[in-house]
Amino acid sequence: MADEVALAPEHFAGSPFGVRVRIALAEKRVKYEYSDENSRDYSALLLEMNPVCKKRPILFHNEKAVCDSLIIVQYVDEAWMGNAPLLPSDPYQRAQSRFWADFIDKKVYEITRKIWTTKGEELEGAKKDFIECLKLLEGELGDKPYYGGEKLGYVDVAFVPFYCWFYAYEKCGNFNIEKECPKIIAWAKRCMQKESVSKSLEDPKKVYDEQLPATFVLFLQAAFMITDHPAKELQAVTHQALCILVKELKNGQTNENCNWSLLCTTRQCQAFWAEAAVKSNNF
Amino acid sequence: MADEVALAPEHFAGSPFGVRVRIALAEKRVKYEYSDENSRDYSALLLEMNPVCKKRPILFHNEKAVCDSLIIVQYVDEAWMGNAPLLPSDPYQRAQSRFWADFIDKKVYEITRKIWTTKGEELEGAKKDFIECLKLLEGELGDKPYYGGEKLGYVDVAFVPFYCWFYAYEKCGNFNIEKECPKIIAWAKRCMQKESVSKSLEDPKKVYDEQLPATFVLFLQAAFMITDHPAKELQAVTHQALCILVKELKNGQTNENCNWSLLCTTRQCQAFWAEAAVKSNNF
Repeated sequence: MADEVALAPEHFAGSPFGVRVRIALAEKRVKYEYSDENSRDYSALLLEMNPVCKKRPILFHNEKAVCDSLIIVQYVDEAWMGNAPLLPSDPYQRAQSRFWADFIDKKVYEITRKIWTTKGEELEGAKKDFIECLKLLEGELGDKPYYGGEKLGYVDVAFVPFYCWFYAYEKCGNFNIEKECPKIIAWAKRCMQKESVSKSLEDPKKVYDEQLPATFVLFLQAAFMITDHPAKELQAVTHQALCILVKELKNGQTNENCNWSLLCTTRQCQAFWAEAAVKSNNF
Repeated sequence: MADEVALAPEHFAGSPFGVRVRIALAEKRVKYEYSDENSRDYSALLLEMNPVCKKRPILFHNEKAVCDSLIIVQYVDEAWMGNAPLLPSDPYQRAQSRFWADFIDKKVYEITRKIWTTKGEELEGAKKDFIECLKLLEGELGDKPYYGGEKLGYVDVAFVPFYCWFYAYEKCGNFNIEKECPKIIAWAKRCMQKESVSKSLEDPKKVYDEQLPATFVLFLQAAFMITDHPAKELQAVTHQALCILVKELKNGQTNENCNWSLLCTTRQCQAFWAEAAVKSNNF
């Protein structure tokens, strides 16, 4: 029986977590299809994973579902063991790879989110923290062409999806990453020469113009606890409101110009809006 | 050459993260010694891991250092492959084990910390979340004696160290875990019949009486950003102050009885003390 492989990606093609899985599958030359949870027979599997795993990406392999991008990448590496190993075979090198992938997972995402959701001192702190992170990662790379040594490995797969967001970070934070960390940019460009990477990453301008605002809306929805709100109508209205807020802020309009009557549909959210509006005017 | 293995444990014998490593090493029948970072030749290794890995436990194996409890447990499993495998061999089962260990890492610790640092509505919410977590974990256990099936596995090693904190959670939260989740307690007692577990876990009363207050002081130090403060004297004074605060709160004295002159040694911390004093009166 041929393998049935499908990926339920995240809502945005540029999401670093979904891109990790796409690169890993491409490296292993595994053919797969994109799946929506409502399509095919995956809904039962997804239901089973809920309420534990609420996040995408999710990989479906035959009758099984695997969650969490780094766990999926390790699964892909072990399930298709023969082709292009991602993790090294030595236990210590494996532990080091896991350590750095975790570091990227825990640090890079949290810090970079601050670059597009804060301003002033907090933004300056986030930029400083980000550069520090990158310098540590430059140190770990050393003189190797890839984190995996002579070839793309687990840490490369974990890290390189963030590269297509660098342009957005630079625009939001008004700084130049290459000036501070030239080795990281050289490494990223090297990775981009591989089809598995270049075909999986989104266009940086598209990330900044479309996906960043959309991600920001999702971020606000989660922060305001609207994502799981039982009233579907409220969800729809606040989603619409947030899109307007983010779009107007991105276009440089002041808070006064925002459609506040729509934004303030719920009392609970009112306080949040004000703070969010102040914080989000990086756009 | 015989293996040189040493463990730099956390500051408290009952810390779930250090206990994981102790159980894994005991299951593998690996002899090791405890190491302080100042002893032997590990200081150079530690310096190398800094500033990336600031946390303990750290495992030293010959000339190498491995950080992060779950990564260490996987390392121990792979480095001593022959004895008592902790992770299953099937890639999907391995992915599931990693998923649940991560779930425990991310959810259980965060939620249970709220049980001993909050009160009122927030505490009630944390208790509810904790029970929900345990019920999901009961579901995953199913009818198996261990998460590893017929024998102790990776998820058991990740989860059972929290068991010696259950008494402290119950005292702080005034609730009964066994009443809500009898299967988890039965599983934990089954694990405790193994010497690798019973010899690694701390006495629950000692955890509540000694380690919880001490952990709370560390938690406050980190929250007040004193841990890394360059002025060693300030660190010492605030540590002393926090010990008094926590001890007095634990003994049921009111905030007014605290040694406020000592507590308010720095202006920066003043606002924090007030909030912490209110929040911490679970003790």
